[in-house]
Amino acid sequence: MALNSVDEIFVEKLRNVLPGAAFLADPTGFLVEPRGRWSGRGVVVSPASVDEVSALMTACFGAHVPVVPYSGGTGLVGGQTVAEGPVPVILSLARMNKVRAVYRHDNVIEVDAGVILADVQAAASDVGRLFPLSLASEGSARIGGLLATNAGGLNVIRYGNARVQCLGLEVVMADGTIWNGMSRLRKDNTGYDLRDLMIGSEGTLGVITGASLRMMPRPADEATALFVVPTPAAAVSLLSKAGEHLGESVTAFELIHRQGFDFLDEAGLAYKAPFKEAPEWSVLMKVGLPVRRSAQGALEDLFENAGDLILDGVIAQSVSQAQDLWKIREMIPEGNRRIGAVSSHDISVPISCVPEFIALATAILAKIGQFRINCFGHLGDGNLHYNVFPMAGRSRVDHQDQRDAIKTAVHDLAHSFGGSVSAEHGIGRLKVTDLETYGDPAKLAMMRAIKDALDPRGIMNPGAVLRA
Amino acid sequence: MALNSVDEIFVEKLRNVLPGAAFLADPTGFLVEPRGRWSGRGVVVSPASVDEVSALMTACFGAHVPVVPYSGGTGLVGGQTVAEGPVPVILSLARMNKVRAVYRHDNVIEVDAGVILADVQAAASDVGRLFPLSLASEGSARIGGLLATNAGGLNVIRYGNARVQCLGLEVVMADGTIWNGMSRLRKDNTGYDLRDLMIGSEGTLGVITGASLRMMPRPADEATALFVVPTPAAAVSLLSKAGEHLGESVTAFELIHRQGFDFLDEAGLAYKAPFKEAPEWSVLMKVGLPVRRSAQGALEDLFENAGDLILDGVIAQSVSQAQDLWKIREMIPEGNRRIGAVSSHDISVPISCVPEFIALATAILAKIGQFRINCFGHLGDGNLHYNVFPMAGRSRVDHQDQRDAIKTAVHDLAHSFGGSVSAEHGIGRLKVTDLETYGDPAKLAMMRAIKDALDPRGIMNPGAVLRA
Repeated sequence: MALNSVDEIFVEKLRNVLPGAAFLADPTGFLVEPRGRWSGRGVVVSPASVDEVSALMTACFGAHVPVVPYSGGTGLVGGQTVAEGPVPVILSLARMNKVRAVYRHDNVIEVDAGVILADVQAAASDVGRLFPLSLASEGSARIGGLLATNAGGLNVIRYGNARVQCLGLEVVMADGTIWNGMSRLRKDNTGYDLRDLMIGSEGTLGVITGASLRMMPRPADEATALFVVPTPAAAVSLLSKAGEHLGESVTAFELIHRQGFDFLDEAGLAYKAPFKEAPEWSVLMKVGLPVRRSAQGALEDLFENAGDLILDGVIAQSVSQAQDLWKIREMIPEGNRRIGAVSSHDISVPISCVPEFIALATAILAKIGQFRINCFGHLGDGNLHYNVFPMAGRSRVDHQDQRDAIKTAVHDLAHSFGGSVSAEHGIGRLKVTDLETYGDPAKLAMMRAIKDALDPRGIMNPGAVLRA
Repeated sequence: MALNSVDEIFVEKLRNVLPGAAFLADPTGFLVEPRGRWSGRGVVVSPASVDEVSALMTACFGAHVPVVPYSGGTGLVGGQTVAEGPVPVILSLARMNKVRAVYRHDNVIEVDAGVILADVQAAASDVGRLFPLSLASEGSARIGGLLATNAGGLNVIRYGNARVQCLGLEVVMADGTIWNGMSRLRKDNTGYDLRDLMIGSEGTLGVITGASLRMMPRPADEATALFVVPTPAAAVSLLSKAGEHLGESVTAFELIHRQGFDFLDEAGLAYKAPFKEAPEWSVLMKVGLPVRRSAQGALEDLFENAGDLILDGVIAQSVSQAQDLWKIREMIPEGNRRIGAVSSHDISVPISCVPEFIALATAILAKIGQFRINCFGHLGDGNLHYNVFPMAGRSRVDHQDQRDAIKTAVHDLAHSFGGSVSAEHGIGRLKVTDLETYGDPAKLAMMRAIKDALDPRGIMNPGAVLRA
């Protein structure tokens, strides 16, 4: 079904159903993705309530005008920018930014979809609870987009990804219908799980306007350690041992390669060196325990019982020392950015396959050319950011013609382990072809059938996830 | 679209595509639900592989013959029995009963859908891991049905329901297409979440034939306590305090009312009385901790710090004492069965609303008549089994005409708290009208659209969840 670009006549019609405050004079901030790689087009409309979203969707549905839900705009796969095809309405959630209610005894917080992640964390903290979703862009990412992309981040090993934090949704469908699926329930087996269908659908099935989110008890004591491990295989074994010693208390388990340290040096990013020499492989881990238990003691206990899995280590003796260690991890993406990757990959494989994946990927890339590899990330989830860089003195531009070969090699290898070519970033527009290449055909057919059933005119974020 | 009953001619056709072993001589075990309340009709076919399931589905799709996936047959809402309409093929998963693989370092176990829950638990235990799903029928319930109904049980507070245990699925669709969605990945954001759509769809969208399941570390030390609490409100506060003291280590948190003890006595079921007099309200809780931590000590610590939330308590000093306490909880459903409920309800409300729900329900039922109420269940999840019984000397038959009024009153009340009328048992055929009454209209419309998209001829378990 042909879609129509948003035009002045249509915007005039919208002005009849929406207040003037919903119309933004300057759309520039909404048209370029965060790293400046792609830019899009569109007319930004920012409703202030679910009813206004419904009115907007009803109008767009009637006029066959495409709609791109726009949350914090921090996504890395172009789900929020449309460069070609009919010009869309960009539906900004920025004005729906209220915490609706906090239920301390239920451990539930209900929010508008436009609330910024850091504000949800703060609201939970205010009542002595934890909202555990945490990632680099938490100061600007909004809940609607975090759910629409099923965001991951640092604490997935313990608390799960965005999906697991969500108990219920309020969603406006393509035709303007409002589904009130907000819920404070922990258990509800009444009908199909539409919540999880919407979560991760990247704005292609409906607009998330509100969410009931789960809060957790705050650990009473936390501790951080950076352990030097001999090999990635030892890191995997240490993860198992950590489970035995610490149960579900392991909050983060991040693999770091020496290349990450080297890039910080090369990029001139300052940090406190935890060891004289940067270790080849290390694991940054965080533990949180309930009252009357020493998290630092628990890490010391693990260290003493790790045998030859750990070569050396620093267990932070203070909050500021822990912050210094985490600063290293948090700066790695900035170091990468300054060096300039030839190709970056957000892959996952079964955790036990991580060592073999790393070994094989190194060998395969050596056949393509000479590169520096910064392999780091969420080992506890089997999720690696496997990023390929030029050698010192060369630039990413020098390898432009090898980029596709590198990407295909890394993705093929991950796929051969039953892995994923988008572990936490989603499909957006960047990976539509990857999904077609690596996705199960029956799954793709089902996705298409569901898309056609829930968005029969194809106005919801056309071209994202599924080809328009 | 009209469906055709399975008949001898169609069965002969099936014999051309399936081996003789797939045809069962005697279908009696498959036609009556576990409590004997309803019976159905059908021809039982039991394929031994996903390809045989695919061949069967292809044939049924071609001939417009309905199919009822049949797992352990332990469901309580009639999802597995068809009493009216076209006679279906009953697709038994009993011959697909192999553990396919166990991946210890990945904490993953891959199984056929026909594997019995207790066998999954045992296979995980064999490698030092825990498969945490646990419920009364674990000796006969099979994984396919447990996932299709998103089963709950005792350990949901810590480990989540069946959905959370599942990383991937193998599913045969209505037309015989096989979706290979098996996965050992912890993170995979490539496309719509079809796994969670299938989970809880009660066999109305496809046949689950295999599953990748998550295993957990086994707690090194476990302890159980029965705490007497002054009120349900104190139980809710104790749950909050338990979170602060024990973090995610609370494995079960079950509310028990004195009526449960009284029914055990009245029904002649033997148990070791933990207190001289059965307490009005008590909480049975279980804690599991990693190595080098005393679970019993942790419960003593909680007891000492609970203030007036706990009136009295027994902390089990041995495994056998813990078993004695759990036996009480496990016998409560049998006690109920022997007394004979007028009406049973599997409801959930926000945890903080449980005390008010209990108070109001008592008042509302008193207006309908004189009853004994056994309210017990998974307080940690806000899930109560709120069951209404005749007074001593009377029988459920005496209250036959009040049954609908009781059910409506309890369900209306739960709904008024934003609660669920089926927290863990599902919709089946028993609660189709409830779903229509209490479900969000937009949700129902989406469910219907998805059903039509994925099962266009309506052959998958017709009449379950959605009206045929």
